[in-house]
Amino acid sequence: MTGMKEMGQEGAEAAEILASARACVDPELRRAIDSLPGSMRRVALYHFGWEHADGAPAAGHAGKAIRPALVLAAVRATGGEQAMAVRAAAAVELTHNFTLLHDDVMDGDTTRRHRPTAWTVFGEADAVLAGDALHALAQRLLAEDPHPAAPAAAARLASCVVELCAGQHADCALERRGPDEVTLDECLAMAEAKTGALLGCACALGALYAGAGRGEVEALDGFGREAGLAFQLIDDVIGIWGDPGRTGKPAGADLATRKKSLPVVAALASGTPAATELAELYGRPSADGDLERMAHAVEAAGGRDWALLHAADRMSRAISQLARAVPDPQAADGLLALAEFVTRRTY
Amino acid sequence: MTGMKEMGQEGAEAAEILASARACVDPELRRAIDSLPGSMRRVALYHFGWEHADGAPAAGHAGKAIRPALVLAAVRATGGEQAMAVRAAAAVELTHNFTLLHDDVMDGDTTRRHRPTAWTVFGEADAVLAGDALHALAQRLLAEDPHPAAPAAAARLASCVVELCAGQHADCALERRGPDEVTLDECLAMAEAKTGALLGCACALGALYAGAGRGEVEALDGFGREAGLAFQLIDDVIGIWGDPGRTGKPAGADLATRKKSLPVVAALASGTPAATELAELYGRPSADGDLERMAHAVEAAGGRDWALLHAADRMSRAISQLARAVPDPQAADGLLALAEFVTRRTY
Repeated sequence: MTGMKEMGQEGAEAAEILASARACVDPELRRAIDSLPGSMRRVALYHFGWEHADGAPAAGHAGKAIRPALVLAAVRATGGEQAMAVRAAAAVELTHNFTLLHDDVMDGDTTRRHRPTAWTVFGEADAVLAGDALHALAQRLLAEDPHPAAPAAAARLASCVVELCAGQHADCALERRGPDEVTLDECLAMAEAKTGALLGCACALGALYAGAGRGEVEALDGFGREAGLAFQLIDDVIGIWGDPGRTGKPAGADLATRKKSLPVVAALASGTPAATELAELYGRPSADGDLERMAHAVEAAGGRDWALLHAADRMSRAISQLARAVPDPQAADGLLALAEFVTRRTY
Repeated sequence: MTGMKEMGQEGAEAAEILASARACVDPELRRAIDSLPGSMRRVALYHFGWEHADGAPAAGHAGKAIRPALVLAAVRATGGEQAMAVRAAAAVELTHNFTLLHDDVMDGDTTRRHRPTAWTVFGEADAVLAGDALHALAQRLLAEDPHPAAPAAAARLASCVVELCAGQHADCALERRGPDEVTLDECLAMAEAKTGALLGCACALGALYAGAGRGEVEALDGFGREAGLAFQLIDDVIGIWGDPGRTGKPAGADLATRKKSLPVVAALASGTPAATELAELYGRPSADGDLERMAHAVEAAGGRDWALLHAADRMSRAISQLARAVPDPQAADGLLALAEFVTRRTY
């Protein structure tokens, strides 16, 4: 895969960028969440990993802060001051977490960041309401931000939410259909809406806050979208072949739930004998050894190679969008490190 | 009740204001909803009554447009041009409908505006997603509005959403408790958050768009909140004794579902023998004639008189807030007509 190296200097750089973004954005997030009425504050603090279910303080495991880090790195890359965009970065992170709260309810997912999902602890209604409240907080942060780019950022983030909703709708609809009734193009479009859109929006917001021109804003949006697609493809590969060392996600997790992930759909569309075997295995309850058989069939049908090559292709598209927006390689360095980190962190 | 007269000139005036608000705001609403991706557009068009479930055009029955009418009347009352605030009025209406879509899912309500609720037609996930998208559209309308009051309006609307969520949470929590474990103060606070807050916000937004001072903005918020409480009290009276001629809501509807509406909670708190009887009736499945018995017990325990008197008190508080914000009675006329219309329309 393009630019794939052992986690070395760049990985360390990305980890540092992420830690610094988390340190910048957390106080803003905490302040926003602390302003909520008790009922929703409890759910939000639990969801962010800052409280246990009983309200006792927790160490915090609020995710990797990739989206706020992209906002801040994009501001720097386009010549702005990172400090100006901390509210925008927090708004993006609140928006991301609002959609996670809602998606977990709709998907019936019971685990998130190694803990029971908020709806399993507080009920579906309170999880939906806490998500609604985080959505409102995100928009309020931008509405109260005196920076001249804030209204354009708020409008862009709102449009992104509509796209995220469309992506989640497509995801639910695809999961209800049979594996042979789903095309690869539909799955790619869904992944772009559900994952690429907000990564692109994060980068675009950074550029807006730096006062970048329209062309640069759109190119950075494209960079984030393409990198997001690459990230999703790698994540789907991990969902099949696993990476227990780093993410704790066991091999076969997505196969056990018969998820129509990108490598699976590519394999099913291959017209190979392995595709026929995979379709048959996907259509029946798992017997012993079936997860290994499925993983093997996806690989034999070319699903794994396709996903890795397609991820590489998306990353190279991302990099050329980045070069268009930020021609100086040194200025682009932070964004590049983040993109490479999220796409090869676990592979 | 204060100002209670037969629907006459003022009622006709209010009906005209509402029809004119609907005519102003509908094109803006339609434009916003038409911008949605197909999946959510269908749900939204159905919810607003503009399409049938199969996508065929419908005559439209999108509610009475009270909130947008309040925005526009508040702009006029505080010396602004109504045309400037059409987007803000549409944003308030979108916000209201986002919360209706979500509340119907949480409450399991199956009928809204005489039709099956959206979630019963499209499923819970799509109803939640359509609500999220309307919420985003509301904020986008304000973010894209060049009017200098738009950011303050967006922040205020976002804070109002948080309050609406807190109100809905309190409502769900109250409904899970026994009728004798609920205090009247809790119910009033819940009604203020769930109903008063957005009516107050609508009036405040109108004042913001007219460039009114802080004192007037807050007084108009107070006017809307108090009128909203009066409206809720009257609505709760109708939920028990009915008003089939106008709303189609049958007598006893709220009793059949054992709703802890304000007159019921007031009756239960009265310490009268009728309260004991009501508590007993509320705690068992309905037998023949029980709805009439319950309605009678609420009345005998003073719940009906309390609700009507308290509504009158709230209306007089609303009117004094209005006089503070808009001393010229002629300028205040539209807002007053709307408040009187919503509180006595059906009584």
